[in-house]
Amino acid sequence: MSELNSQQWFTEIFSPSGSAFSLRIEQKLAEVQSPFQHIEMYKTTDFGNLMVIDGVIMLSSRHNFLYHEMLSHPVLFTHPAPKNVVIIGGGDCGTLREVLKHPDIERVTQIDIDEQVTRMAERFFPELCASNNDPRATLLFADGIQYMRETPAGSVDVIIVDSTDPIGPGEGLFNRAFYQSCLAALKPGGILVQQSESPLIHLQLLNDMRQAMKDAGFADLQTLQFPQMVYPSGWWTCTLARKDQAIDGFRRDAAANPAFETVYYNAEVHQASMALPNFMRQQLAAQ
Amino acid sequence: MSELNSQQWFTEIFSPSGSAFSLRIEQKLAEVQSPFQHIEMYKTTDFGNLMVIDGVIMLSSRHNFLYHEMLSHPVLFTHPAPKNVVIIGGGDCGTLREVLKHPDIERVTQIDIDEQVTRMAERFFPELCASNNDPRATLLFADGIQYMRETPAGSVDVIIVDSTDPIGPGEGLFNRAFYQSCLAALKPGGILVQQSESPLIHLQLLNDMRQAMKDAGFADLQTLQFPQMVYPSGWWTCTLARKDQAIDGFRRDAAANPAFETVYYNAEVHQASMALPNFMRQQLAAQ
Repeated sequence: MSELNSQQWFTEIFSPSGSAFSLRIEQKLAEVQSPFQHIEMYKTTDFGNLMVIDGVIMLSSRHNFLYHEMLSHPVLFTHPAPKNVVIIGGGDCGTLREVLKHPDIERVTQIDIDEQVTRMAERFFPELCASNNDPRATLLFADGIQYMRETPAGSVDVIIVDSTDPIGPGEGLFNRAFYQSCLAALKPGGILVQQSESPLIHLQLLNDMRQAMKDAGFADLQTLQFPQMVYPSGWWTCTLARKDQAIDGFRRDAAANPAFETVYYNAEVHQASMALPNFMRQQLAAQ
Repeated sequence: MSELNSQQWFTEIFSPSGSAFSLRIEQKLAEVQSPFQHIEMYKTTDFGNLMVIDGVIMLSSRHNFLYHEMLSHPVLFTHPAPKNVVIIGGGDCGTLREVLKHPDIERVTQIDIDEQVTRMAERFFPELCASNNDPRATLLFADGIQYMRETPAGSVDVIIVDSTDPIGPGEGLFNRAFYQSCLAALKPGGILVQQSESPLIHLQLLNDMRQAMKDAGFADLQTLQFPQMVYPSGWWTCTLARKDQAIDGFRRDAAANPAFETVYYNAEVHQASMALPNFMRQQLAAQ
């Protein structure tokens, strides 16, 4: 039985599934208690820098591409012509960077409640913040729930909810009231996408999210799956919800000939992310 | 920083990637030192029973379906008409069970060097051993490398190498000499498939395997990817190598209308497993 020395390893215990994931660390780089959460930064031996919020691993330098690419490119290539994008959460700015790779995007507004997340990212993930000064980008530090309530109706093409788990500040981003605000803010045919946890250990939560999206009035849902090794189970999902219209494939030609580079995403990977295993087909609610 | 009490957690440290994975345990069920390796069985709180060999997690009751299904069904639906199958390793009998679900299979010979693995599986994974008495199955406890050397040329349709990592008893199953024996044993158009580790942390090993398969004379290779949460990184691969012929898709109609049930595999999942992310496309050798 191996022992992990807590001086050399950061361990996240995921108690509901009786599992834990650890990364070997060289040192703690920084730590701050913001008004909203406890943020820690570590230098790992093999994964680059690591951000931890309230004890939960958020991202590492080496593997955040999986999550950020899959939260951005599938929804943007599913929408026929996205121009105006809102990101709720996303304070590490990695999703913002991916969205801004699309040359036709005219405006991206990112609303994270916690400015300290972005300040930490600027110091320890500068590559993710490389597009923060893009003239198309606006970074706000405010309550995303209130922001969506106050967004003019029918003004947004795509909303990306890049949040923590549904505990703490992220809790209000997983319910019907929030989804109703998002639905109102979207133009006809607009799409919401949200990270929707692990198919192996959060299927109930994923189902609750899908049901709440349906109850809020979204016309069609699509859950995509992809690997993400630093999150519990190493397998993750995001869920698209479209206003008024069915989700009818994606712009495959555009996805196959992007104007930018990606590490994980390509058109075949997008198609593959839609293939759900039998147990998910059988157990997903609100089909 | 969380601490894992070693009385309550089994931890596998994967030192080359500076990561570790832990499962919470209720008790140790059994332990045996075979002539080949050290085998431990645990009862976990959330994953059912857990088999560990030489400190490395092999399988859990709850999630072995991902690996066993993906090592069996893609290769069997890629071969046009498999009748005679050899499994090298596979002592837990989970792969054997999946192979025997195919009604047209006439004969499966499983050769694991370590009888103790199968004896443990019979006790603690009885569901995986449910087909061990199928009249089409033969279980041998012998050296798979020697077995393949002595197999009559051109006698086998599909070889499944379901081995441990390339250290210890599994080491000789990852090199050109072994692949040459397999190539000779296969009929024309026959296919070898082998678990080929993680795309995130074993890409060099995967490339070495692919190169050795090519050097041995296989005509075409195909690496498939799938989730597997109890292995390092939670993301795993297997690699198909075909004798004399290109790997030209799979029997999609048969895969879409199987005569049996699966938990993960279906025809869309099969297609999706072939979609490789950009970094794999760029870095895979012996294309």
